[in-house]
Amino acid sequence: MPVNYATPAPEALFPVAGVRLGTAEAGIRKKNRRDLTLVELAPGSRAAGVFTQNRCCAAPVTLCREHLAISNDIRALVINTGIANAATGEQGMKAARDTCAAVAQTLGCKSDDVLPFSTGVILEHLPTDRLIAGLPAAKTDLDADHWHAAAHAIMTTDTVAKAASRRIVLDGKTVTITGISKGAGMIRPNMATMLGFVATDAGLAPELLAGLAKDAADVSFNCITVDGDTSTNDSFVVIATGQSGLNIDSAASPHWLAVREAVIAVAQELAQAIVRDGEGATKFITVKVGAGGTADECRKVAYAIGHSPLVKTAFFASDPNLGRILAAIGYAGIDDLDATGVKVWLGSQGEEVLVSENGGRAASYREEDGSRIMKEAEITVRVDLGRGQSQATVWTCDFSYDYVKINADYRS
Amino acid sequence: MPVNYATPAPEALFPVAGVRLGTAEAGIRKKNRRDLTLVELAPGSRAAGVFTQNRCCAAPVTLCREHLAISNDIRALVINTGIANAATGEQGMKAARDTCAAVAQTLGCKSDDVLPFSTGVILEHLPTDRLIAGLPAAKTDLDADHWHAAAHAIMTTDTVAKAASRRIVLDGKTVTITGISKGAGMIRPNMATMLGFVATDAGLAPELLAGLAKDAADVSFNCITVDGDTSTNDSFVVIATGQSGLNIDSAASPHWLAVREAVIAVAQELAQAIVRDGEGATKFITVKVGAGGTADECRKVAYAIGHSPLVKTAFFASDPNLGRILAAIGYAGIDDLDATGVKVWLGSQGEEVLVSENGGRAASYREEDGSRIMKEAEITVRVDLGRGQSQATVWTCDFSYDYVKINADYRS
Repeated sequence: MPVNYATPAPEALFPVAGVRLGTAEAGIRKKNRRDLTLVELAPGSRAAGVFTQNRCCAAPVTLCREHLAISNDIRALVINTGIANAATGEQGMKAARDTCAAVAQTLGCKSDDVLPFSTGVILEHLPTDRLIAGLPAAKTDLDADHWHAAAHAIMTTDTVAKAASRRIVLDGKTVTITGISKGAGMIRPNMATMLGFVATDAGLAPELLAGLAKDAADVSFNCITVDGDTSTNDSFVVIATGQSGLNIDSAASPHWLAVREAVIAVAQELAQAIVRDGEGATKFITVKVGAGGTADECRKVAYAIGHSPLVKTAFFASDPNLGRILAAIGYAGIDDLDATGVKVWLGSQGEEVLVSENGGRAASYREEDGSRIMKEAEITVRVDLGRGQSQATVWTCDFSYDYVKINADYRS
Repeated sequence: MPVNYATPAPEALFPVAGVRLGTAEAGIRKKNRRDLTLVELAPGSRAAGVFTQNRCCAAPVTLCREHLAISNDIRALVINTGIANAATGEQGMKAARDTCAAVAQTLGCKSDDVLPFSTGVILEHLPTDRLIAGLPAAKTDLDADHWHAAAHAIMTTDTVAKAASRRIVLDGKTVTITGISKGAGMIRPNMATMLGFVATDAGLAPELLAGLAKDAADVSFNCITVDGDTSTNDSFVVIATGQSGLNIDSAASPHWLAVREAVIAVAQELAQAIVRDGEGATKFITVKVGAGGTADECRKVAYAIGHSPLVKTAFFASDPNLGRILAAIGYAGIDDLDATGVKVWLGSQGEEVLVSENGGRAASYREEDGSRIMKEAEITVRVDLGRGQSQATVWTCDFSYDYVKINADYRS
């Protein structure tokens, strides 16, 4: 059960002019489930993406990078679940190329204008024949209103489909931003998450779009962790079709900040949905680290807390065994950290309690306050490093029996 | 249940001339258990230690460093379980100093000659009154044959006591090396583990002893991980009493290498015992990474594999979902790693199977071979990075329901 998250209703996911989505059952790894998604983009659409930094990155990630560098006119995305097509060598690259060629033939565009995405088991080969055989059905299903179905079709261990949508009116023109994401485990994105797609019908100059993809990832998918494992397939793509009639050519445009903010809001909602649906999660934890010397050291501390199995099992147990948070701060890698300058608060529902200061337990801290807050489903850990002005936020979840169960049973 | 490890019988733990150990029930956190250990060392004994790099280190760790810098004649160790005396601020430092002063009074030595150690819950205060009240009983219990009892008295979530012993004869003189350790969770030592003590009755020059403590830690306690959490209290101390009559004054001494090797063997046995008794462990995993450009990059890869919750749950499930190992290698932090040069083998019981090469699954790999090996209790993952001559080894365990259970219930 995800923590305070439900998939928006189909009618709450506004269509984006220039984007149609279709899904099909291709039987890639399991039968009787929609495991193939085709996204068709109108001519003139632009796309920018950020991808996993994992050195064993998947074949489709390599090909996405290649196509984004070559093509100015991305016309389709093709996404399969079941098999990640990662650690598959030359055969994997051929499978990804064959997939793009088949999509190009199906939709009447060039191979280079197709971006491929895969998610699922690593080290197994993609059954390209079955995938390609599923394309006609996916094409038949193409519809601007199929965001909801597409959000379902890209799921793996996810328990809910993840989607978000915004409409803003600028200069009398309605601009829509809609996105979907998937992911629940192997989540510690390093540039992007498993799969995230956000489309807008605003027109965006290429350099603005590329910067926005990076900036949006940095404050959304790059701020989450479920288990600290950076996936081989992380991909986050922002698409701008320009079909709304609103075109933004430079960062000086009066509407740039409004569109940027809306895209980032959608990306953050999608990224947080992944943590809320983190494998086995029962709690949603926000870790805010401030007063750091650099943003990088704040991130190190936030991730040390967010990754610690001891901290995460304490949250699962609702046990205010908060010394574990101090231990994580201490080993986060700030070599000259003065532990006596660190403060730690625990908060929920607008309440915040000072837990630790001066290198020890705060005099005002009472165990019953910690216990009460630890029982909440949404908890904030706030840390003040007492060494500067920088800050960083990470979203994570707790660590339960079900995480082990899900990952011990994944392939069975 | 630890993986292939049982505490040696009392008679297999040879006394070390110049070392006596006594334990007592001080009721520090729970009643009716021996939670206080006193170790008395003969005059002229030397000690050297390595300690946690955690910046929120415990008060006793700070005091150990201080006393080792001042004193040339360590005369006693005092160890309590239940409360870690970490993140306890000024009051924690006073508690550690008061403890040393009381031990000094009990045994008739100087405060500076006492090394204090604590392990247990962080962020709670040490009940010094109860600890000090327990010292007379611990003194009465002092005996050269009490290594076995001391190994039990320093346990926390450990399910077995950990001890190891060796005897070597050099120049007709019998030299004994005996050690004990504790730890099962919050284990990712960074210079040392929770608590490890090794004593020998060889005499060792101060610079040899200091180097040996560091070298032994580097190939034993610094090569293990249970959950990636570096403790606030990690301490590893090597003691040389000189009472065997064999004195080694320089690295050129003919017996130096034999003593060094025996101390390292005891340290490795104690470190591996911690992993075998890792919280919830059902398997003992050796990760060997070779052909790296530097030892440091080999360690990064070995720890990425050893820490990955996904790899560890796959071992728990006996599921050869080995793509997770490649994902961990890929995100380990070698920015210029060529994934096509990496090879991965899985082995057990003298058998070894090539799993991956050329960036994908090895042509010869068969799933039934992987499945068979994954069912074993002792498994080796061997990685060849294909970029140099360096290597590193890390020992770890799998990740089971019981890890979550133990750490969710720890304080209850």
